[in-house]
Amino acid sequence: MRRCSLVAVGDELLDGRVADTNSDFLSRELLSLGLEIVLRAEVGDDLEDIASVLDCALELSDLVVVTGGLGPTDDDLTREAAARALGVPLVRDPEAEEALRSFFSRLGRDMSPSNARQADILQGAERIPPRLGTAPGQWLERDGRVLVLLPGVPREMEDMMTEDILPRLRGRLASAPERRSACMLVAARPESEVGEAVSTALRDLQGVEVSYRAMGGQIEVRLTSQSGELLEEARRRVKRALDGWVVAEGGETLEESLGRELRARGLTLALAESCTGGMVGERITRVPGSSDYFRGAVVAYDYRAKEELLGVDRGLLEEKGAVNEEVAEAMARGARERFASHLGLSITGVAGPGDGGEKVEVGTVVVGLAGGFGSRAWRYRLPGNREMVRVYASTLALALLYFHLRQGGGGGGS
Amino acid sequence: MRRCSLVAVGDELLDGRVADTNSDFLSRELLSLGLEIVLRAEVGDDLEDIASVLDCALELSDLVVVTGGLGPTDDDLTREAAARALGVPLVRDPEAEEALRSFFSRLGRDMSPSNARQADILQGAERIPPRLGTAPGQWLERDGRVLVLLPGVPREMEDMMTEDILPRLRGRLASAPERRSACMLVAARPESEVGEAVSTALRDLQGVEVSYRAMGGQIEVRLTSQSGELLEEARRRVKRALDGWVVAEGGETLEESLGRELRARGLTLALAESCTGGMVGERITRVPGSSDYFRGAVVAYDYRAKEELLGVDRGLLEEKGAVNEEVAEAMARGARERFASHLGLSITGVAGPGDGGEKVEVGTVVVGLAGGFGSRAWRYRLPGNREMVRVYASTLALALLYFHLRQGGGGGGS
Repeated sequence: MRRCSLVAVGDELLDGRVADTNSDFLSRELLSLGLEIVLRAEVGDDLEDIASVLDCALELSDLVVVTGGLGPTDDDLTREAAARALGVPLVRDPEAEEALRSFFSRLGRDMSPSNARQADILQGAERIPPRLGTAPGQWLERDGRVLVLLPGVPREMEDMMTEDILPRLRGRLASAPERRSACMLVAARPESEVGEAVSTALRDLQGVEVSYRAMGGQIEVRLTSQSGELLEEARRRVKRALDGWVVAEGGETLEESLGRELRARGLTLALAESCTGGMVGERITRVPGSSDYFRGAVVAYDYRAKEELLGVDRGLLEEKGAVNEEVAEAMARGARERFASHLGLSITGVAGPGDGGEKVEVGTVVVGLAGGFGSRAWRYRLPGNREMVRVYASTLALALLYFHLRQGGGGGGS
Repeated sequence: MRRCSLVAVGDELLDGRVADTNSDFLSRELLSLGLEIVLRAEVGDDLEDIASVLDCALELSDLVVVTGGLGPTDDDLTREAAARALGVPLVRDPEAEEALRSFFSRLGRDMSPSNARQADILQGAERIPPRLGTAPGQWLERDGRVLVLLPGVPREMEDMMTEDILPRLRGRLASAPERRSACMLVAARPESEVGEAVSTALRDLQGVEVSYRAMGGQIEVRLTSQSGELLEEARRRVKRALDGWVVAEGGETLEESLGRELRARGLTLALAESCTGGMVGERITRVPGSSDYFRGAVVAYDYRAKEELLGVDRGLLEEKGAVNEEVAEAMARGARERFASHLGLSITGVAGPGDGGEKVEVGTVVVGLAGGFGSRAWRYRLPGNREMVRVYASTLALALLYFHLRQGGGGGGS
């Protein structure tokens, strides 16, 4: 097995509403197994169109992975199209039907007839039970080729790919030369600087490929090689070159590595958020068990809340505005005191499009940190629109706290 | 001419090096002409593969636009593949060859034999002379279908598309009917129920297409038709069928339509979040100008914060746990009082994977709402993993508040 095709199904992928991030994810995963992608296709919710594209993909490839079109509504046609392309019937799987029925009964609801369509399986296919959602996946082998059907909801697809499909593929590929990869997340540095530092570090090293992915103020640096030794050498060099800017490694997220550092030091954290509106708290609490170190947050969107809930001096706000180092530090101290945590982290800034009456440029963000050591603040000017400024700002706040802890900052006593 | 396919050629599009921004550009341009994209495909530099994909694209569409593979090197195979797919020969165009020769002589260089391949044109095709670069484009009409070949370098492609291809397409489309669409967002209802209600409502209506997209507890229902009257009739019927479950229309988000309702009534809102960790606040503040109605939030992740920052009775928490109607209402009242807002909205629940010591099933979420009218609460059992429960819960809270306002609930005095 070597040649793979990816087919993503859904009108929303073709009319400009949604980018096909599923195929991006699948592409990375399959490439990291050393497989080759020969075709990527996005096709609308049309039975004939899907069947034609599947025909073409099956002709060109050893493995075809299809995402989307497995839902319960009339426009979910991947099952029928695959049956037509392969010339096999669909059969209703009693176990799948029972699993659907019990899914709905756990929610206190009856299963509708259209939901039962989700239990239709290609004859000869193995059903992959869903852990999330209601759409089962399918794995069908025919004439040495493999067709995989996955749900289109990204989380459901990623879960099934990671837990069910990749292990099967690894098993099949066990004898083929393996490609290994190593991953690092870098924050608070522009992509061009990261790229140059990595290129310089790897200049005389053959047999290692590098790829980059920018995501919300973080850059994922992925190194791939067929040699474990080369990969380790490259990883060491890149890590040295990027020095203090690596925030996570080996597939960990920034939120997870920050949580690990806090837990290891027995420190608790509280937040005071302004322009991010709760995004930093949302990100920290993505990690199961974050209640061990996360106490809570105050989202103070106006002066009054900053004064009354965080104890920021009203005179200071009136005089200097909300976006400055003194206010950021006062907010961080306020959060720390209100929640009786070791550390307080704050963000104040202007995400745009307007300046909200603050006398600073749109994109100005100040991050504050308070602990037993006192308090400090960092000012940044971030590019992009409202959403980008908010995402970048929350990444910066998390990264700055992470760097503080790694540099031995700790809570500084309480 | 209505159905279009985009085919992008190049290994770099499939091995993770480069995103296919050419197809993004072409897609926007063709959609803005009212055309429909039925297939997007990326294929590597392989003669057989390209020919197979072109076969499929030509079968499905009235217009196929191919980008890339028109250069002078051995791996530029689009011309040969198109010739094979169509069963027509390539002929060397003397004018194109002369244009290439003079291009190189202006640079003081001889034309290499491989460059001469760029003068090979599909028999019967019109050559589009390049203003930038050396690769001519091609426009071929056959059996009422159009095949367009464009260079892969983005600015060469964009120049040729804008200056040469779009004017030709506009000419052809001048008389063709336009397709319009209408969009609705539905929340707090399972996709299968929505699908059945819509199918029933549109049963005897021909000429309207429906598509669905599930996203974080919301379902986007999109209606498309060539007739404005039919579309409006369908929109009215669907809206009636979905009754009170529509949370936004016409491309608005739930966060925007909720903000509009709050602003129209002059109401302010504060939040008390537990398991969502700040997600509801983050979503509300995605909307520019949300500071007009959003006061802030307390993220209270443990009992102590619920007691001290929101005034929830400690005895109640000890006795009944954090996930119940009384606590949710107390949290909502607490947020309303602390921020002196008209309305307080709360979420408490267990997102998993563990139950965090609460004696309820993972996925149990209670939403509370407080206003001058008093307070009320709703209990739900949500499916999926931690992330899904949190996203669904925040959607539910926003939708329940929206429904409350639409049903005339208002702030109920202050």
